Amino acid sequence: MPQSAIHLDGALLTDFYQLTMMGGYLANNKVDQQAVFELYFRKVPDDGGYCIASGLEQALDYVQSIRFSGRDIDYLRSLSKFAPSFLEYLREFSFRGDIDALEEGSLVFPNEPLLRVSASMAEAQLLETALLTIINFQTLIATKASRICYAAGHGAVLEFGMRRAQGLDGAMSASRAAYIGGCAATSNVAAGRDFNIPVQGTQAHSWVMSFSSELEAFRAYARAYPESCALLVDTYDTIQEGVPNAIIVGHEMEARGESLRAVRLDSGDLSFLSKECRRMLDDAGLSYVKIFASSDLDEWLIRDLRAQGARIDTWGVGTRLVTSHSSPALGGVYKLVGATEQGVMVPRIKVSSNPEKTTTPGAKQIWRIYDDSGMMAGDALALADEQCDPGVSPMRTRHPHYFYLHRTYSHTFRAEPLLVPVVRGGKRVYTPPPLAEIRSRAMAQLAALRDEHKRFINADIYWVGLSERLFELRARLIEQVSATEKADEPRHPG
Amino acid sequence: MPQSAIHLDGALLTDFYQLTMMGGYLANNKVDQQAVFELYFRKVPDDGGYCIASGLEQALDYVQSIRFSGRDIDYLRSLSKFAPSFLEYLREFSFRGDIDALEEGSLVFPNEPLLRVSASMAEAQLLETALLTIINFQTLIATKASRICYAAGHGAVLEFGMRRAQGLDGAMSASRAAYIGGCAATSNVAAGRDFNIPVQGTQAHSWVMSFSSELEAFRAYARAYPESCALLVDTYDTIQEGVPNAIIVGHEMEARGESLRAVRLDSGDLSFLSKECRRMLDDAGLSYVKIFASSDLDEWLIRDLRAQGARIDTWGVGTRLVTSHSSPALGGVYKLVGATEQGVMVPRIKVSSNPEKTTTPGAKQIWRIYDDSGMMAGDALALADEQCDPGVSPMRTRHPHYFYLHRTYSHTFRAEPLLVPVVRGGKRVYTPPPLAEIRSRAMAQLAALRDEHKRFINADIYWVGLSERLFELRARLIEQVSATEKADEPRHPG
Repeated sequence: MPQSAIHLDGALLTDFYQLTMMGGYLANNKVDQQAVFELYFRKVPDDGGYCIASGLEQALDYVQSIRFSGRDIDYLRSLSKFAPSFLEYLREFSFRGDIDALEEGSLVFPNEPLLRVSASMAEAQLLETALLTIINFQTLIATKASRICYAAGHGAVLEFGMRRAQGLDGAMSASRAAYIGGCAATSNVAAGRDFNIPVQGTQAHSWVMSFSSELEAFRAYARAYPESCALLVDTYDTIQEGVPNAIIVGHEMEARGESLRAVRLDSGDLSFLSKECRRMLDDAGLSYVKIFASSDLDEWLIRDLRAQGARIDTWGVGTRLVTSHSSPALGGVYKLVGATEQGVMVPRIKVSSNPEKTTTPGAKQIWRIYDDSGMMAGDALALADEQCDPGVSPMRTRHPHYFYLHRTYSHTFRAEPLLVPVVRGGKRVYTPPPLAEIRSRAMAQLAALRDEHKRFINADIYWVGLSERLFELRARLIEQVSATEKADEPRHPG
Repeated sequence: MPQSAIHLDGALLTDFYQLTMMGGYLANNKVDQQAVFELYFRKVPDDGGYCIASGLEQALDYVQSIRFSGRDIDYLRSLSKFAPSFLEYLREFSFRGDIDALEEGSLVFPNEPLLRVSASMAEAQLLETALLTIINFQTLIATKASRICYAAGHGAVLEFGMRRAQGLDGAMSASRAAYIGGCAATSNVAAGRDFNIPVQGTQAHSWVMSFSSELEAFRAYARAYPESCALLVDTYDTIQEGVPNAIIVGHEMEARGESLRAVRLDSGDLSFLSKECRRMLDDAGLSYVKIFASSDLDEWLIRDLRAQGARIDTWGVGTRLVTSHSSPALGGVYKLVGATEQGVMVPRIKVSSNPEKTTTPGAKQIWRIYDDSGMMAGDALALADEQCDPGVSPMRTRHPHYFYLHRTYSHTFRAEPLLVPVVRGGKRVYTPPPLAEIRSRAMAQLAALRDEHKRFINADIYWVGLSERLFELRARLIEQVSATEKADEPRHPG
């Protein structure tokens, strides 16, 4: 589909102001100014306790794909806003900087960098928009999926939201991220092909309606797919007809040495229907037939249905998963934390009257601290050149806002740095692991996170402290900004 | 970006069950069974009064692009689920059916078909998922944009949500649909290039922070873009520094014969700040400088800010527009309304214990009825072969559920059919108009819709009645289904 919304090429997938700023950096001889930007979010969606980092592989694909085509340049020239020298610069453009990143499937908390981009101001600026789009959305969905899987307990969760996704690669990204977050399979065939995710499905009402009776429709499906037959039982009347017809077909399959795999409930009260359906199947000697349920499910409804004893083995979740319906955006930002002046890298801060929006200056590393049982005990944000080893000396971490809150980790703890080099000098130096491995990392990290942080209501806030050095740098810069009075004086130490 | 979530090719962008059902239709010698499916929604998002149909052009691109590549076939074969004859069928597959559609930019109401697909069961089935994805999402966003523009009144609305969009073509589709719904411009450069939408932008905090002072940053931007200079004034302190610095630069620009176009507020209380900022600019003789505001805006906040007298000229709306944050999915469905038996097309119905989910059988046309002042007076759903002309004979329309509710339109009204042929025998017979024309259609139709249907709270429900013939067909089929008692008997008249 060339030239449509579906065929995407990278370079112009950005906000217009990134290009005007880039042009401005060039016009102001700032093309060699080096910058460090960090990508992070301030708030966990749904007031949850954690996020699962996701989307790095697509982010790296994007960064590597950036080339301005003749068509791009012609379009930009037609806007009569850009100097010819800037258009020439773009024609030669490719990203030549460095990127450090949190590996996909890692748990991540507010204010922790998922990506750190070190490059010229212009290069780093261009990347902002699409990096945010990709990382924000996949992280949002991986997180949502993990919540839904948490609610489902041992029951498998199948993602089948493509038809309600926000665009076709909204669907693709959602299927990928949902698998990372714990879903067992997707209905999205292209995602199955491209990401090696198991694909699954049952049948639609139209299948049943295309036959002259439901029983005939069920028999036809069982003949066509004897090894994976799941029957949708709610086209006409679930209890009066659908389940009895499924039982007839289940017995016919037994007689042929086959076995009906599942029935699917897609409407009505899933608690009542699943219990009734379970009883009918069991009474008919079909206790091995699973019950698959769908219909506007999310983590809260699944939790409630399970609390009421619903007999559901597999949960099909669509709309509310792939759009993260209750909280459809992760508010990731991409902030300048350092820039060179006369060749020297200087940390930068943005101070806001809203304290949550005041940034933490300097290129940073995340250190994850584990207790001696292997459970996560807190994270420390430190300057990128710090070594944090509680085994060597006790490690004191400070709350970023409340000066009297701190935690000290001693030798019974161990810490590991999380950001790894992924791009150096524009070249990818990191091979993303297979998706199944990313998913395993997420499952392992979730197992190391205390349940208290996974609650849907009033989740316990996981500790993310600043190292002493970072805390002091931040305090000093805030102090300096506050001390500056006149409107036309520098707002940061430079 | 080949082989990633961003490069999309059409054929496998579908739910797995569509393929198993297609295989089943073939296995059951139903390959020649003809079917009619209609795509519609049951509920307007945000409890609003209307939707704006959007996405047809991309939907047609998708339909025409469907070809199963060798890679697709190999992948499907690897699943060990499909008969070789079915894989051969797919290898030769292209869509050969007919599609009728509502033109983009048309207002549309619950239960009205946006698309009608007439093809073999297998062909029509394959299309379901991606058609829904494309039409659901663009219709959702065009509608949301129109609500936000309605709240903004004469103030222009700029869409700049890419970074929070659900995937990159979520962003592309959102920019396109937002323009249809009334936005004046987008920040998304690729959407500007591909869809010919005006692009706009200001600058980021990083621009300001990359200079040693805000004033220097403002001066540099004004030098680089003297004709379209808008300055972001909230990096440090909006009132104490940002606006005073903008005023200094505004005066400097005046001295050079240029003029500062706007200042941008991006945090803090937009009501207070815009009034204060307006006063400061006016006192400085810069009453021509516009105020652009952004920060978590949506239709409700814009309405409230305007009610409080906020002095905002242009509204930048991102996250809450491109994700339709308060209602992030349109629940469009794709339902079988007719299928052949022994070569004769028979209307189909799905009866549900939830009356809203009982379908309306038969291939249908929408007739839009206008009063003699040109305002929309109601719609009628009729069978596709009916002529509805209130000028010829009074036209009685019936409520689909409540038998005692009806409306009759006489010769002072005129009616026009809305669904037009767009694909015949697999060939496109419709040239989508330029996007600006689609946008104009939406604006014209909104002007013909009474304000009562545009309210955000308790919007008046626009009348969509059934023609007498359609009402009677539906009632007869419901009657027949209800009269059927045995579980293994036909659930529809056939």
